Amino acid sequence: MKGKATFYHAGCPVCVAAEHAVLGAVDRNQFDVEEVHLGTAKDRIAEAEQLGVQSVPALALDGQVFHINFGASLSDLK
Amino acid sequence: MKGKATFYHAGCPVCVAAEHAVLGAVDRNQFDVEEVHLGTAKDRIAEAEQLGVQSVPALALDGQVFHINFGASLSDLK
Repeated sequence: MKGKATFYHAGCPVCVAAEHAVLGAVDRNQFDVEEVHLGTAKDRIAEAEQLGVQSVPALALDGQVFHINFGASLSDLK
Repeated sequence: MKGKATFYHAGCPVCVAAEHAVLGAVDRNQFDVEEVHLGTAKDRIAEAEQLGVQSVPALALDGQVFHINFGASLSDLK
Protein backbone atom coordinates (compact mmCIF):
# COMPACT_ATOMS: atom_id res chain seq x y z
CA MET A 1 0.00 0.00 0.00
CA LYS A 2 1.22 3.45 -0.83
CA GLY A 3 2.00 5.94 1.89
CA LYS A 4 0.84 9.49 1.93
CA ALA A 5 3.10 12.52 1.57
CA THR A 6 1.43 15.87 2.16
CA PHE A 7 3.17 19.19 1.81
CA TYR A 8 1.53 22.10 3.64
CA HIS A 9 2.48 25.61 2.65
CA ALA A 10 1.11 29.12 2.51
CA GLY A 11 1.94 30.03 -1.04
CA CYS A 12 5.00 32.24 -0.85
CA PRO A 13 6.91 31.88 -4.13
CA VAL A 14 10.21 30.95 -2.50
CA CYS A 15 8.49 28.30 -0.37
CA VAL A 16 6.68 26.87 -3.36
CA ALA A 17 9.91 26.55 -5.33
CA ALA A 18 11.56 24.76 -2.42
CA GLU A 19 8.53 22.60 -1.96
CA HIS A 20 8.71 21.44 -5.54
CA ALA A 21 12.31 20.37 -4.97
CA VAL A 22 11.34 18.35 -1.90
CA LEU A 23 8.15 16.87 -3.29
CA GLY A 24 9.91 16.19 -6.58
CA ALA A 25 12.41 14.04 -4.71
CA VAL A 26 9.76 11.88 -3.07
CA ASP A 27 9.44 8.40 -4.48
CA ARG A 28 6.04 8.30 -6.18
CA ASN A 29 6.12 4.52 -6.10
CA GLN A 30 6.06 4.72 -2.32
CA PHE A 31 3.90 7.77 -1.71
CA ASP A 32 0.83 9.48 -3.03
CA VAL A 33 1.81 13.12 -3.00
CA GLU A 34 -0.46 16.01 -2.16
CA GLU A 35 0.21 19.72 -1.89
CA VAL A 36 -2.03 21.78 0.37
CA HIS A 37 -2.08 25.58 0.28
CA LEU A 38 -3.37 26.45 3.73
CA GLY A 39 -3.82 30.08 2.72
CA THR A 40 -6.57 29.11 0.31
CA ALA A 41 -7.65 25.70 1.65
CA LYS A 42 -8.61 26.96 5.07
CA ASP A 43 -10.81 23.93 5.58
CA ARG A 44 -7.62 21.84 5.80
CA ILE A 45 -6.09 23.83 8.67
CA ALA A 46 -7.79 21.74 11.37
CA GLU A 47 -6.45 18.56 9.75
CA ALA A 48 -2.93 20.02 9.62
CA GLU A 49 -3.12 21.08 13.26
CA GLN A 50 -4.29 17.64 14.25
CA LEU A 51 -1.27 16.09 12.51
CA GLY A 52 0.98 18.40 14.50
CA VAL A 53 1.81 21.00 11.87
CA GLN A 54 2.92 24.12 13.70
CA SER A 55 4.43 26.14 10.86
CA VAL A 56 4.68 25.98 7.11
CA PRO A 57 6.22 24.75 4.98
CA ALA A 58 5.83 21.30 6.50
CA LEU A 59 5.96 17.83 5.06
CA ALA A 60 3.88 15.01 6.53
CA LEU A 61 5.04 11.50 5.69
CA ASP A 62 2.40 9.02 6.78
CA GLY A 63 1.34 11.45 9.47
CA GLN A 64 4.85 12.16 10.76
CA VAL A 65 5.40 15.90 10.46
CA PHE A 66 8.65 17.53 9.40
CA HIS A 67 8.86 21.29 9.60
CA ILE A 68 11.11 22.56 6.87
CA ASN A 69 12.90 25.83 7.29
CA PHE A 70 15.19 26.80 4.51
CA GLY A 71 17.05 30.03 4.19
CA ALA A 72 15.50 32.23 1.57
CA SER A 73 18.38 34.23 0.20
CA LEU A 74 17.73 37.91 -0.26
CA SER A 75 18.56 37.49 -3.93
CA ASP A 76 15.60 35.13 -4.29
CA LEU A 77 13.35 37.84 -2.95
CA LYS A 78 14.52 40.59 -5.31
CA MET B 1 22.23 11.81 -14.41
CA LYS B 2 21.30 11.17 -10.83
CA GLY B 3 21.05 13.98 -8.35
CA LYS B 4 22.59 13.94 -4.93
CA ALA B 5 20.64 13.87 -1.67
CA THR B 6 22.71 14.31 1.47
CA PHE B 7 21.30 14.20 4.97
CA TYR B 8 23.43 15.88 7.64
CA HIS B 9 22.76 15.04 11.26
CA ALA B 10 24.46 14.81 14.61
CA GLY B 11 23.38 11.40 15.69
CA CYS B 12 20.58 11.95 18.19
CA PRO B 13 18.33 8.88 18.12
CA VAL B 14 15.14 10.85 17.49
CA CYS B 15 16.78 12.73 14.61
CA VAL B 16 18.10 9.54 13.09
CA ALA B 17 14.66 7.93 13.16
CA ALA B 18 13.15 10.98 11.48
CA GLU B 19 15.96 11.08 9.00
CA HIS B 20 15.29 7.52 7.97
CA ALA B 21 11.68 8.45 7.25
CA VAL B 22 12.75 11.38 5.07
CA LEU B 23 15.61 9.63 3.30
CA GLY B 24 13.46 6.54 2.89
CA ALA B 25 10.96 8.64 0.95
CA VAL B 26 13.53 9.95 -1.51
CA ASP B 27 13.32 8.46 -4.96
CA ARG B 28 16.51 6.41 -5.39
CA ASN B 29 16.03 6.46 -9.13
CA GLN B 30 16.50 10.22 -9.04
CA PHE B 31 19.02 10.62 -6.25
CA ASP B 32 22.09 9.01 -4.83
CA VAL B 33 21.51 9.18 -1.11
CA GLU B 34 24.15 9.81 1.51
CA GLU B 35 23.92 10.21 5.26
CA VAL B 36 26.58 12.24 7.03
CA HIS B 37 27.02 12.21 10.80
CA LEU B 38 28.73 15.51 11.46
CA GLY B 39 29.46 14.50 15.03
CA THR B 40 31.83 11.80 13.82
CA ALA B 41 32.69 12.98 10.29
CA LYS B 42 34.10 16.30 11.36
CA ASP B 43 36.03 16.53 8.10
CA ARG B 44 32.66 17.04 6.36
CA ILE B 45 31.67 20.09 8.44
CA ALA B 46 33.38 22.57 6.11
CA GLU B 47 31.55 21.07 3.13
CA ALA B 48 28.22 21.31 4.96
CA GLU B 49 28.89 24.93 5.90
CA GLN B 50 29.78 25.75 2.34
CA LEU B 51 26.46 24.33 1.16
CA GLY B 52 24.69 26.58 3.63
CA VAL B 53 23.87 24.07 6.37
CA GLN B 54 23.29 26.05 9.54
CA SER B 55 21.74 23.44 11.77
CA VAL B 56 21.08 19.73 11.74
CA PRO B 57 19.20 17.75 10.72
CA ALA B 58 19.39 19.17 7.21
CA LEU B 59 18.74 17.70 3.81
CA ALA B 60 20.65 18.91 0.77
CA LEU B 61 19.06 18.15 -2.58
CA ASP B 62 21.53 18.92 -5.35
CA GLY B 63 23.09 21.52 -3.12
CA GLN B 64 19.82 23.18 -2.08
CA VAL B 65 19.64 22.99 1.70
CA PHE B 66 16.50 22.30 3.69
CA HIS B 67 16.71 22.58 7.44
CA ILE B 68 14.35 20.13 9.00
CA ASN B 69 12.95 20.79 12.43
CA PHE B 70 10.51 18.28 13.70
CA GLY B 71 8.99 18.21 17.13
CA ALA B 72 10.55 15.49 19.23
CA SER B 73 7.78 14.48 21.58
CA LEU B 74 8.79 14.03 25.19
CA SER B 75 7.56 10.45 25.00
CA ASP B 76 10.15 9.75 22.32
CA LEU B 77 12.83 10.87 24.71
CA LYS B 78 11.77 8.69 27.63
